[in-house]
Amino acid sequence: MATGEIEISVEHLEILNPSKTQLPFPIRQFIKAKESLRMQYRYLDLRFPEMQRNLRIRSKVLMRMREFLINKCNFVDIETPTLFRRTPGGAQEFIVPTRNPGKFYSLVQSPQQFKQLLMVGGIDRYFQIARCYRDEAGRMDRQPEFTQLDIEMSFVDRESIMMLTEDLLVESWLEELGEISTPFEQMRYDDAMELYGTDKPDARLPYKLQNVTDIVKTSIALTTKTGIEYNDNFGAYAVVFPKESKNFSNSTKAQFDDISKREFPQAKLLQVKITESSWKSGLTTLLSNDVVDSIENRLNLHNGDMLFLSVGQKPDVQEVLGKLLILYTNILESKGVTLRAPGFKWLWIVDFPLFSKEDNENGIRTTHHPFTQPHPEDLHLLATDPLKVRGLHYDLVSNGWEIGGGSIRIHNSLLQKQVLEILGIDTCQMSHLLEALDSGAPPHGGIALGLDRYIAMLCNATSIRDVIAFPKSMEGRDAMSGAPIQISDEDKKLYHIRTPAD
Amino acid sequence: MATGEIEISVEHLEILNPSKTQLPFPIRQFIKAKESLRMQYRYLDLRFPEMQRNLRIRSKVLMRMREFLINKCNFVDIETPTLFRRTPGGAQEFIVPTRNPGKFYSLVQSPQQFKQLLMVGGIDRYFQIARCYRDEAGRMDRQPEFTQLDIEMSFVDRESIMMLTEDLLVESWLEELGEISTPFEQMRYDDAMELYGTDKPDARLPYKLQNVTDIVKTSIALTTKTGIEYNDNFGAYAVVFPKESKNFSNSTKAQFDDISKREFPQAKLLQVKITESSWKSGLTTLLSNDVVDSIENRLNLHNGDMLFLSVGQKPDVQEVLGKLLILYTNILESKGVTLRAPGFKWLWIVDFPLFSKEDNENGIRTTHHPFTQPHPEDLHLLATDPLKVRGLHYDLVSNGWEIGGGSIRIHNSLLQKQVLEILGIDTCQMSHLLEALDSGAPPHGGIALGLDRYIAMLCNATSIRDVIAFPKSMEGRDAMSGAPIQISDEDKKLYHIRTPAD
Repeated sequence: MATGEIEISVEHLEILNPSKTQLPFPIRQFIKAKESLRMQYRYLDLRFPEMQRNLRIRSKVLMRMREFLINKCNFVDIETPTLFRRTPGGAQEFIVPTRNPGKFYSLVQSPQQFKQLLMVGGIDRYFQIARCYRDEAGRMDRQPEFTQLDIEMSFVDRESIMMLTEDLLVESWLEELGEISTPFEQMRYDDAMELYGTDKPDARLPYKLQNVTDIVKTSIALTTKTGIEYNDNFGAYAVVFPKESKNFSNSTKAQFDDISKREFPQAKLLQVKITESSWKSGLTTLLSNDVVDSIENRLNLHNGDMLFLSVGQKPDVQEVLGKLLILYTNILESKGVTLRAPGFKWLWIVDFPLFSKEDNENGIRTTHHPFTQPHPEDLHLLATDPLKVRGLHYDLVSNGWEIGGGSIRIHNSLLQKQVLEILGIDTCQMSHLLEALDSGAPPHGGIALGLDRYIAMLCNATSIRDVIAFPKSMEGRDAMSGAPIQISDEDKKLYHIRTPAD
Repeated sequence: MATGEIEISVEHLEILNPSKTQLPFPIRQFIKAKESLRMQYRYLDLRFPEMQRNLRIRSKVLMRMREFLINKCNFVDIETPTLFRRTPGGAQEFIVPTRNPGKFYSLVQSPQQFKQLLMVGGIDRYFQIARCYRDEAGRMDRQPEFTQLDIEMSFVDRESIMMLTEDLLVESWLEELGEISTPFEQMRYDDAMELYGTDKPDARLPYKLQNVTDIVKTSIALTTKTGIEYNDNFGAYAVVFPKESKNFSNSTKAQFDDISKREFPQAKLLQVKITESSWKSGLTTLLSNDVVDSIENRLNLHNGDMLFLSVGQKPDVQEVLGKLLILYTNILESKGVTLRAPGFKWLWIVDFPLFSKEDNENGIRTTHHPFTQPHPEDLHLLATDPLKVRGLHYDLVSNGWEIGGGSIRIHNSLLQKQVLEILGIDTCQMSHLLEALDSGAPPHGGIALGLDRYIAMLCNATSIRDVIAFPKSMEGRDAMSGAPIQISDEDKKLYHIRTPAD
């Protein structure tokens, strides 16, 4: 027909299988059923053109990645086990009881150990599109099982893995999304926090954080009024949305205040609409008049601007403003203001700290995983000041989404042992890896891309559930079959376990 | 060098990572370490050229399969969940406790249900290289997790799936293994049992079973001497190895007698070396002289031939001879006699019985799985004589190895319900599938190929463990890491389970 649709004129009709006349929801309709119903009847939901398109794009892009890695770059696709033993110091792993009383497998959270062992085994270019498992019930847009493109190479440095990854994305890119230009910009972790208040910056944003610590520190008013001390960790940052205060409502203000107090207790937030007059009273409750004037000059504030200012402990200050920067941008864009640049803005985030502070026995945890190579320039700090050590880790970020991450790994067993000990991890649990490193392990490194999220981004889907054929709910439930369910007494006996009701 | 090896003349040497001087076993050696040691240090074992070759062949062949299915045949590669609910009537499935007290996932034994639901969802050509899980501890050459190429199509018949599979194998075949010629021969299940005593015939074998039931039935001597009744299920079969009795030793005789008595109690085995004279006494203990003469004529027995004869219940008779046919062939080949034809002999086995006898409440179990379409010619027998119903199932066999199997599925919910009820399976457990079939499910069918075994065959490996990077032992143990291991009290608390020691 003129519309491009097809009209079929039927001569003979044979019904191969009758269908119920009243399906739970109609397929030819613009307004979709609510998600719980879509999930319960996923096999009907899959008939929507968007779902058909998403799954076909997924298949196509993954195939292009394989073609690039195998046919162009000589990688070997190797399957690694998912039933293994717990990796200490990572995410919560599902356990699987066996017929051997009291003995359990863990479902791997990634092929990390196996890919390193493959390097020791002389497979110098490995990849796998790997199923991974994490028991992180209730975290937004997470699935108990997910898929990552897992890559590892021997005799490489950070730059060559980044280059390979960029080439891989270019080769598997969808033409209809426009050009993807390489090399991607690199940003140090400290700069990402300084400018965007997050390690996943959305580089499409026109506005950034502005550091006003030096100005605020000249004033004693803040200390007098709030008791906040100007220690090494003090920070004062601002975000300005020029001419955009008109969409700032009281409910937005209340929401932002709530987020700040609940999630970032060590930062104090001030939200001020810049007007012709009297707007400074919103700041002088905490800051001296001199300081407020300096801030006005530095930030070049004008009537109609929206100002967010936060003071306190630097990490909380940066992060609350990073969050509000996104949220207020979203609010403005929902009102029709275009702020973000079009297309995809790719970034490599580098020079992450190797360790982060943690409220545990050692006061320290690994920022990514215990196998990341410390930055060679910082090796001397490992024993004396570990929190200052950077790691050879890199994250790939696009439009504010973390698409992947990787690192150069530790290939020396003594260094690996030292790092495990700093983290308070029992080295006996990792003796197989330490022994392997001692057997002539080549220097190696790699990366893993989160394919569910990457494909969701390509498909412009709001949730990864829209690019997974049979996803689970936020609570890990399969709405179609009702899984997880109770097991039989025979199963309990076979696996030597008892449950609360027994 | 002249040998083709490379000699390197070193000008500068930098040691990137030192290795222990004394590795558990040397890599440059023809005599391999014993398997337990190889498994404990798998990362060293992977350095052997055979393992490198096997893993690279695996990667290459799997890629060719994908290229054929996606690029040539427009299949969609779709990942399906592994955490699901138990499928009734299949293999033992691993269970995975959740944070929800008493609720468990099961690890899928195959994507069977999901691929059928995808057909209902309008994905008419699906495939996946899928990880599957079965808890079959201790069965020879099985792994708790394994990989299958899983295919499903809508609007197909048996022949089109066979043809697609043959094309797939031809396209992904290794040139160095010689030609693979299609179409593959088809053999009815009954004929496979009649000629080879197994549903996985090795068609390279020169000798087959020979049916002598008609001769033996003319004699009353057997009944008098053994009490064996000539009921409908009676069978007498022979296998003759012409001129091959010289390698038949007393210990072989004892071994075969033991197998027959232990595994096939309803068959009586006679093993006779044909000589110039007096060999008949080995048969006349049970059979009348007339019958022995007729057998001699029918089988054309001559001095030096080796005769195996079995009488009793047909299934046991056929199976014991099928097993001895292989075992004695292996013994002869180990002595240097060439019996098997060279190359690969492919077979499709068709017309399997839909159900088999079982010692359970219903006296019946499914031969493959409850979703197989009954043969249309036998539908009238479903209610009255289900054991006589054939299924639209097909197995792919090569050189005596089952490489894959599939079927046309039931697409009508009433028929599916009827079959579940015959099997005594609670239909409530399968309500999601029944509902899906009721929503306009197209006729569909598919196949799954066991890739570990297929690749082992291509690599001429004796065990699937030689084509898996990190296999587990027969007991499901990972020798490298010691998995499965005990879990922490925190894990037990988190997953609401107690173990025997608690």
